[in-house]
Amino acid sequence: MSTNERWFPGHLKELSEAECLEQLGEHHVGRVAYCDQDGPVVIPVNYVVEGRSVLLRLSPHATLASHLRSADASFQIDEFDDYTQSGWSVLLRGHATYVDVADHPAAADLIPWAEGQRSLLVRIAAREITGRRLLPA
Amino acid sequence: MSTNERWFPGHLKELSEAECLEQLGEHHVGRVAYCDQDGPVVIPVNYVVEGRSVLLRLSPHATLASHLRSADASFQIDEFDDYTQSGWSVLLRGHATYVDVADHPAAADLIPWAEGQRSLLVRIAAREITGRRLLPA
Repeated sequence: MSTNERWFPGHLKELSEAECLEQLGEHHVGRVAYCDQDGPVVIPVNYVVEGRSVLLRLSPHATLASHLRSADASFQIDEFDDYTQSGWSVLLRGHATYVDVADHPAAADLIPWAEGQRSLLVRIAAREITGRRLLPA
Repeated sequence: MSTNERWFPGHLKELSEAECLEQLGEHHVGRVAYCDQDGPVVIPVNYVVEGRSVLLRLSPHATLASHLRSADASFQIDEFDDYTQSGWSVLLRGHATYVDVADHPAAADLIPWAEGQRSLLVRIAAREITGRRLLPA
């Protein structure tokens, strides 16, 4: 079936916050987003969930880290299936701050895939968590 | 091998713009990002590439559309493999505008998965296209 033969596109359904948190808890890579003077920047990172927050480990010298010291930021995950043309996405919108590793034991489970001295722990605390599921047509 | 046994995290390598455009051309779903008063918003959408731009079909009544009338916006794609802890990502940063379908024949190949009257064509024209590959450790 080519995409041109699809007469009945898929339905979008809102996810509850509990469903969003469940998806966040089951994955290890997502995308952090921030805004600079030229608009949004979206960067994949490893993460762990802690309550209604996500924790990231960054290099303190990275451009990304400098934008997350105290800033509005978002964290996004999703998954799609080309064959059934369906999927889901979760968006956590909140505020990013630097936090102390000693205060966040969940960070022990956060092992970034990428190399580098990632000694800085950043928390994005949710103001709002939303998600949608695109059901197969 | 548990992630805790990984002593040699993966290397990050910059992608050329040509490599980024090649990846953009091979995929059908990505993420559009814009900034509102509360920070960045990241939303999955279907797209097609046209030169150094991406084209999206949106409902003219959607919140997303209202933020892309003439605004700094980004478009992001990526792919990761949990087993090898490797992957790649591409970020196109630019400016979004509404465009006329008649002027953009590439839009004929753009069939959104989600339902709805998606009569509005939005182009995000690149100011900058960057990408990175995370090689397995």
